[in-house]
Amino acid sequence: MIVEILAVGTELLLGQIVNTNASEIAVRLAELGVNHMRQSVVGDNRDRMDGAITEAVARSDALIITGGIGPTRDDATRESVAAVAGVPLLFDEEYAATMRANWEARGTEFPESNLKQAYCPQGATVIKNPKGTAPGFRIKIKECWVICLPGVPAEMITMLDESVMPFLLAESGSGPGVVTSRVLQSWGMSESKVGEVLDDLFTASVNPTIAYLASAGEIKIRLTAAAPSTEAAAALIAPVETEVRARLGDHVFGADDETIERVVHNQLLAHGWTIGSAESATGGSIAQRLSMIGGASATFRGSIVAYATELKTSILGVPSNVIEEHGVVSEPTAIAMAKGARQVLGTDVGVAVTGSAGPEPMEQPVGTMIVAVVTPTREHVQTFRMPGDRERIRAYTSTAALHMVRSALTAG
Amino acid sequence: MIVEILAVGTELLLGQIVNTNASEIAVRLAELGVNHMRQSVVGDNRDRMDGAITEAVARSDALIITGGIGPTRDDATRESVAAVAGVPLLFDEEYAATMRANWEARGTEFPESNLKQAYCPQGATVIKNPKGTAPGFRIKIKECWVICLPGVPAEMITMLDESVMPFLLAESGSGPGVVTSRVLQSWGMSESKVGEVLDDLFTASVNPTIAYLASAGEIKIRLTAAAPSTEAAAALIAPVETEVRARLGDHVFGADDETIERVVHNQLLAHGWTIGSAESATGGSIAQRLSMIGGASATFRGSIVAYATELKTSILGVPSNVIEEHGVVSEPTAIAMAKGARQVLGTDVGVAVTGSAGPEPMEQPVGTMIVAVVTPTREHVQTFRMPGDRERIRAYTSTAALHMVRSALTAG
Repeated sequence: MIVEILAVGTELLLGQIVNTNASEIAVRLAELGVNHMRQSVVGDNRDRMDGAITEAVARSDALIITGGIGPTRDDATRESVAAVAGVPLLFDEEYAATMRANWEARGTEFPESNLKQAYCPQGATVIKNPKGTAPGFRIKIKECWVICLPGVPAEMITMLDESVMPFLLAESGSGPGVVTSRVLQSWGMSESKVGEVLDDLFTASVNPTIAYLASAGEIKIRLTAAAPSTEAAAALIAPVETEVRARLGDHVFGADDETIERVVHNQLLAHGWTIGSAESATGGSIAQRLSMIGGASATFRGSIVAYATELKTSILGVPSNVIEEHGVVSEPTAIAMAKGARQVLGTDVGVAVTGSAGPEPMEQPVGTMIVAVVTPTREHVQTFRMPGDRERIRAYTSTAALHMVRSALTAG
Repeated sequence: MIVEILAVGTELLLGQIVNTNASEIAVRLAELGVNHMRQSVVGDNRDRMDGAITEAVARSDALIITGGIGPTRDDATRESVAAVAGVPLLFDEEYAATMRANWEARGTEFPESNLKQAYCPQGATVIKNPKGTAPGFRIKIKECWVICLPGVPAEMITMLDESVMPFLLAESGSGPGVVTSRVLQSWGMSESKVGEVLDDLFTASVNPTIAYLASAGEIKIRLTAAAPSTEAAAALIAPVETEVRARLGDHVFGADDETIERVVHNQLLAHGWTIGSAESATGGSIAQRLSMIGGASATFRGSIVAYATELKTSILGVPSNVIEEHGVVSEPTAIAMAKGARQVLGTDVGVAVTGSAGPEPMEQPVGTMIVAVVTPTREHVQTFRMPGDRERIRAYTSTAALHMVRSALTAG
């Protein structure tokens, strides 16, 4: 099965928006193992839409169109698809009823002028839109399924996951089915190392497939299974997830959309502990992340950003002889800062960072970042050599600090 | 003149990267007033590349291709372009010399294996790549200019601005020329308000054109002029820039890539003053931004993130009766926090935020954010009602705080 993507919208041709819809669809097609050879963009122009659809229908088994099905004058996807299919647009009672129900579910009166959206190419099937008001539709033209979705990414993605991917799975000859993903979040191993440890699991098996996504030192591992039902897909994923977790051990810190901020917050709640930070080179980034979650006040009390050296002594109480003897960018100073944070902020846990974030080195080579975590029962300190520029160094270090807190709290 | 864009790369079809190159090119074509009707993506596959190039050449006056000109096996753009043009690939001495010079300018020995990149379609002209090692090229096939650029965005954009846009301008019949942009940065007016104030300036004139880009409360105003020379383009922009600045007044805080962080840093340097923050709801975001720039230690000393209410008293010295009488989320508390920051951190300027960032309201409705700035000579305080969720409220408030610091420092 060969699938292609056509995005419709003059705003794409004007560069006002980026075509993220194409990559969202592409990544899902890749996970399904479906051949995807081509993406196109045209404006809200009937001639060029007709041309693009005609070409695609001639060379592909399915064409996913995003955009141009809204209620405004320039939305012409339904007219264009009907013209290429050689069928009239008919008022679709089911479509109208679905739209009306969507509006009413939001407690808003249905604007009757929107009924023009209820005209569908004859023979089309409605695709539900759980996140918006206008459903999509699909219609077979010659040997090609033409699938029309809205351009709004959140609506498009939901419809893709809930309706289109299972439909394509069924059409691709694998029978009716669903596509389910499970994301495991890891930290502390490079993407290539994760690949090395896991790759043999996926060379033999193609269901579930695996994909890696790296971001600021964290690696997301996405397992995607296609199966006749959600339960069957989950059953395919479960043993692989177990094996991945066994191989990666403590490097896996969460699943699906759990963030390290959320994991640390929940760990602190479980311990009944509060946290505060003492920051130099990270300049408040850790505090910003510890306070990111709604309800953060249950675990986060505050932070001392002691950027100027003398504030490390005057506010955090780092003994001047520690700084004189070991330097500002040293493990003893980091530990003293974390202890100072606990003391001054009145918290159970203190996390501290001192380092040389560049562009000018500060005592140590640029990228030397030291993180200390002190809990009621333990002290941890670690020196990192972070590559990249100042922005990257600071971002990676705040991530590393949160992961060190997690490790310390896991240890008890 | 009709221009289209073809991006080459299997990673685009796998959804591993988003086609931002297309929107970068599109926005520049729109600014030039060039008709841009179509974008396509194909993988690193000779048949499909040949097909896509052949189609584009038949319907457009220029085709910009990004990607596929690197040194690896799967890079096939030069072969495909030569095949469609019906010319051989020839070893291009100029191309080889440019590549060798680019490598040597980086102090790296030129890998002779890269010489395969020096084969260009016969009759092609080299396009310089100031940011990378492999130049691009252009060649006329029938009536269509085919312009090949690398896929790496930073390289592609520089070549676009320095070579391709001036070339297209000349080819479009406006004579030889350059395209120059000037960005003015503003804060404190909505995008629609900025449009209202400026739009009449641009309904008559189309050179320079204007574009707006909004981000976290800041509005970028981009003026783009096309002219025979850089001097002539600058001369077209200058009077319009003067008029825009006159109409927007103090709302304009910078030009081109100046950020508010940089502007505040430079203002502090000019005053010989240091700054520190006292933060509650923003949780360290302001400190993080004040310490973002390399060399921040010349102006930024530190921050107290007093998230827990009692820390506002115990560390910042906010009098308990101020909190009892006016509340934590109040202007008197914000001013006392800013004064406390100056005192405890030993800075000339203190900036403080207290507020209700949600999701649960804190004394005041969610979105009530109060910013205070205290300098050696002035006190400013302002209450904002920020819309959106917690993340947006915090981001907009840290931006607002930096702009209040700028206003206070401008006032003296």
